[in-house]
Amino acid sequence: MTTTTGAAPAPDTPDALDAPDDGFHVFDTTLRDGAQREGINLTVADKLTIARQLDSYGVGFIEGGWPGANPRDTEFFARAQREVDFRHAQLVAFGSTRRAGVPAQIDPQVTALVEAGAPVVTIVAKAHDRHVELALRTTLEENLAMVRETVAYLREQGRRVFVDCEHFFDGYRANPGYAKQVVRTAYEAGADVVVLCDTNGGMVPSGVQSVVRTVLAETGARLGIHAQDDTGCAVANTLAAVDGGASHVQCTANGYGERVGNANLFPVVAALELKYDRRVLPPGALAETTRVSHAIAEVVNLTPATHQPYVGTSAFAHKGGLHASAIKIDPDLYQHVDPEAVGNTMRMLVSDMAGRASVELKGKELGYDLGGDRALVGRVVERVKEQELKGYTYEAADASFELLLRDEVHGAGPGCSAPRFFRLESWRAIVEQRPDGAQVNEATVKLWAKGERIVVTGEGNGPVDALDRALRAGLERLHPELAKLALVDYKVRILEGAHGTSSTTRVLVGMSDGGAEWTTVGVGDNVIAASWQALDDGYTYGLLRSGAEPREDG
Amino acid sequence: MTTTTGAAPAPDTPDALDAPDDGFHVFDTTLRDGAQREGINLTVADKLTIARQLDSYGVGFIEGGWPGANPRDTEFFARAQREVDFRHAQLVAFGSTRRAGVPAQIDPQVTALVEAGAPVVTIVAKAHDRHVELALRTTLEENLAMVRETVAYLREQGRRVFVDCEHFFDGYRANPGYAKQVVRTAYEAGADVVVLCDTNGGMVPSGVQSVVRTVLAETGARLGIHAQDDTGCAVANTLAAVDGGASHVQCTANGYGERVGNANLFPVVAALELKYDRRVLPPGALAETTRVSHAIAEVVNLTPATHQPYVGTSAFAHKGGLHASAIKIDPDLYQHVDPEAVGNTMRMLVSDMAGRASVELKGKELGYDLGGDRALVGRVVERVKEQELKGYTYEAADASFELLLRDEVHGAGPGCSAPRFFRLESWRAIVEQRPDGAQVNEATVKLWAKGERIVVTGEGNGPVDALDRALRAGLERLHPELAKLALVDYKVRILEGAHGTSSTTRVLVGMSDGGAEWTTVGVGDNVIAASWQALDDGYTYGLLRSGAEPREDG
Repeated sequence: MTTTTGAAPAPDTPDALDAPDDGFHVFDTTLRDGAQREGINLTVADKLTIARQLDSYGVGFIEGGWPGANPRDTEFFARAQREVDFRHAQLVAFGSTRRAGVPAQIDPQVTALVEAGAPVVTIVAKAHDRHVELALRTTLEENLAMVRETVAYLREQGRRVFVDCEHFFDGYRANPGYAKQVVRTAYEAGADVVVLCDTNGGMVPSGVQSVVRTVLAETGARLGIHAQDDTGCAVANTLAAVDGGASHVQCTANGYGERVGNANLFPVVAALELKYDRRVLPPGALAETTRVSHAIAEVVNLTPATHQPYVGTSAFAHKGGLHASAIKIDPDLYQHVDPEAVGNTMRMLVSDMAGRASVELKGKELGYDLGGDRALVGRVVERVKEQELKGYTYEAADASFELLLRDEVHGAGPGCSAPRFFRLESWRAIVEQRPDGAQVNEATVKLWAKGERIVVTGEGNGPVDALDRALRAGLERLHPELAKLALVDYKVRILEGAHGTSSTTRVLVGMSDGGAEWTTVGVGDNVIAASWQALDDGYTYGLLRSGAEPREDG
Repeated sequence: MTTTTGAAPAPDTPDALDAPDDGFHVFDTTLRDGAQREGINLTVADKLTIARQLDSYGVGFIEGGWPGANPRDTEFFARAQREVDFRHAQLVAFGSTRRAGVPAQIDPQVTALVEAGAPVVTIVAKAHDRHVELALRTTLEENLAMVRETVAYLREQGRRVFVDCEHFFDGYRANPGYAKQVVRTAYEAGADVVVLCDTNGGMVPSGVQSVVRTVLAETGARLGIHAQDDTGCAVANTLAAVDGGASHVQCTANGYGERVGNANLFPVVAALELKYDRRVLPPGALAETTRVSHAIAEVVNLTPATHQPYVGTSAFAHKGGLHASAIKIDPDLYQHVDPEAVGNTMRMLVSDMAGRASVELKGKELGYDLGGDRALVGRVVERVKEQELKGYTYEAADASFELLLRDEVHGAGPGCSAPRFFRLESWRAIVEQRPDGAQVNEATVKLWAKGERIVVTGEGNGPVDALDRALRAGLERLHPELAKLALVDYKVRILEGAHGTSSTTRVLVGMSDGGAEWTTVGVGDNVIAASWQALDDGYTYGLLRSGAEPREDG
């Protein structure tokens, strides 16, 4: 929608309209640079799974690791070429220029790159004079020779070569002449792309764009960009480089990478396709963005970030009351792209900041048409506001909101209760640390269901677990449907952090019947009372879902 | 370090060198727009705490909410002006232009803004013709009158007025003439700043910069920027607007906000200070960035994002390998800014070594010189590792760490206990919901202190409060120092969210003796057992601080 640029339009040959061509490279380095993220530790099987996901998504290049540097990466290259049926991507092996003073053809690190068998090789080269002297401990001239000879050798071996100029932007500031000389040397030796790396991630977009533009004009090399996110600008820096004339972008899935991370593949690709009108993925692939993002998060065992651009579960969630009324008229007024374009969906959240419109919309989402009944909607809005003032929240607790809505729809105002499955008389929980160190948790629940009075005691790992077991034990004979309901999540939040243990407590409980999951909320002076409420709502909602018949008297 | 710009240098008067002046506005809207983030639900107490943090950090403006729109925000404005001693920031009330066809002075929403008493008011105005017609359902001309008359009325009431032009960039693309007319109207009516809002967050930096530049040239209005993060470019879009001539930036702490979020205050401010060489915070404030970011995350009860730029625990974390040796030579080769500039620290992820080093460092900080005793440091590292595996965390719980350290220093290995003030025999907590609806919380504690066996029962608002009261009641006669100790914070976190109520629970307890505050940690199968541990450590630490003499037998 928002169009910017400075970037050349994509060639309009029929081929370019159907699929990305070599004119623009989407280069993924999740398996190499992304794996540097603190907490990520990939097995070979993980890497193969991610490679398949990235290939299906349609990136042009998958950098798989550093063969020779560790046995896992060596094994990955061997197996990827046997086991993965690449349909879009070319596999890339990463390594370094030859060492100082050692001919490329006998440097074991360089020969390992060739032996990996990948059709493309990326080699990292120093472009910052101080790094050459202090980290490589060689001369500026020898560094150029290392670049030249390594590129030439790999080209002789039939490899396509990309050169990553490490610390390029810092090097350019310190010694622009030398930094450009490294670019020229690599390009003249046969590198297809010279990649300017913001290794320390300190750049902001205006700086990136002007440097890329200058280097392009002065060297004529095809340029790429590799941005780290230390200023929070990696996506923007990548786009700024494209504005400046770069035609190769290096990214990682979900922005995984060392320190803060790398440029996130998904918003970069989405911006190129949707904001720059460039076709950089195969047709239809963009709509797979959310799925691929979440699948890769699963493989690396990180919860998908809920607030990630385009793919987060919150990315198209609306809360403001102002917004909700306009969204009813035209969703495009309040979203920058169609969520379906990236495989995501719009969601409405209910909160006290929202008004009538979001309650109506949420009602519709849940299957209640409230459009005609202004008084009813008004009552629901009032109750939500009252409840949120007490500490309830319905954004996450959809099931509690639906029960509230149902109470109002079925005519039960605040104070009088709608048909339910059971009616509480009392409960008691006892938690004990005994002299022998044993811990005992016991709960007794007294309730009425189907006209019977039930008194039952449960034991558990904690007081809430004991209450849950007592409630189940009491109801299961009358409602065998309960057997398939399970507690799957439990969250506690103390609402007034500054008032010690006598604060209000909010509990969110997640339940599942094996298929659907739902969340309920409870609030109280203490964690057990709050948990009871959330459990009560959770089981009530589960029984409603199962088709059980509620009664006036529980 | 990386310098860019296009931005005018800050005026070099002595005043501008010492403190930010009105020439550049850092405007925070965490309490209004940030609170729209899914999952955030702030109490008035939360809002007051956050306002104090932001003021201490030195932002120029704190937008506190929408007085009149909900009772919580109205209460916040009343209390903030009574209770918060603002040293840097001015409080801002947010609201809307008058409604169509209603004079500003009798529009209750506008008068609520005046009644809030804040010296500054931000009003939101529509700048997109389609939104005027479809969402406001009025004419383009009436919309201009609404802007003009509301600004004029608020100016007459002695308020400084900022105007947020909602959907400005989308509106500018659809109808640039009208969008600019809204800016001009607001400015001519007396608005100090007209803020261009990328409400749907669809912009990328090159587009923002060119629009800001054009609007500035054609209207002469002082411009601000409000960027949402839907493309992942909010920080960069904010900087691009500054490049284009904007001199007012609206941000939220940690980028909290609707959908993906807003421009994150911390990287925006850090970039302005460190990359643009602009002084936008009071001297010394930037070094508080990490602390303020984490403190606000605690208040909103979100775990501080580990990979946030500048302030994340991973932001300056280096994996060994290539980087390690170079970092020893010159850390600036591998970091874009000095971590201390933003109150963060570099971490080496070479776990064992870093573990020993940080234990030694931490010990020194607490007054224990462990430098000479490698075996002792090794034992402490081992115990910390074991405990962290069980769910303990010592990053926040300094007091529990000091007790652990003290145990080891005084020769008590795991299993045997160091001198303490009391020895537990058993405790029991009962929580009851009675048939009449009354709730009873009762705890009995049996313990030994100074050779006496003590059995005491306490009642409270919840089981932990009851335990706390019982423990105090039991010890106060023997240790009158306890009278001045108070519980000031209490946090619960469930560590394994996917395993229902039988998960591990971690409790952090904050205590104070009127002067110092300290935090302790407890972990257990349930919240009460975990709370007991944290209370035990908390009182033990407090008694140690007060100079009481521990005994071998409690």
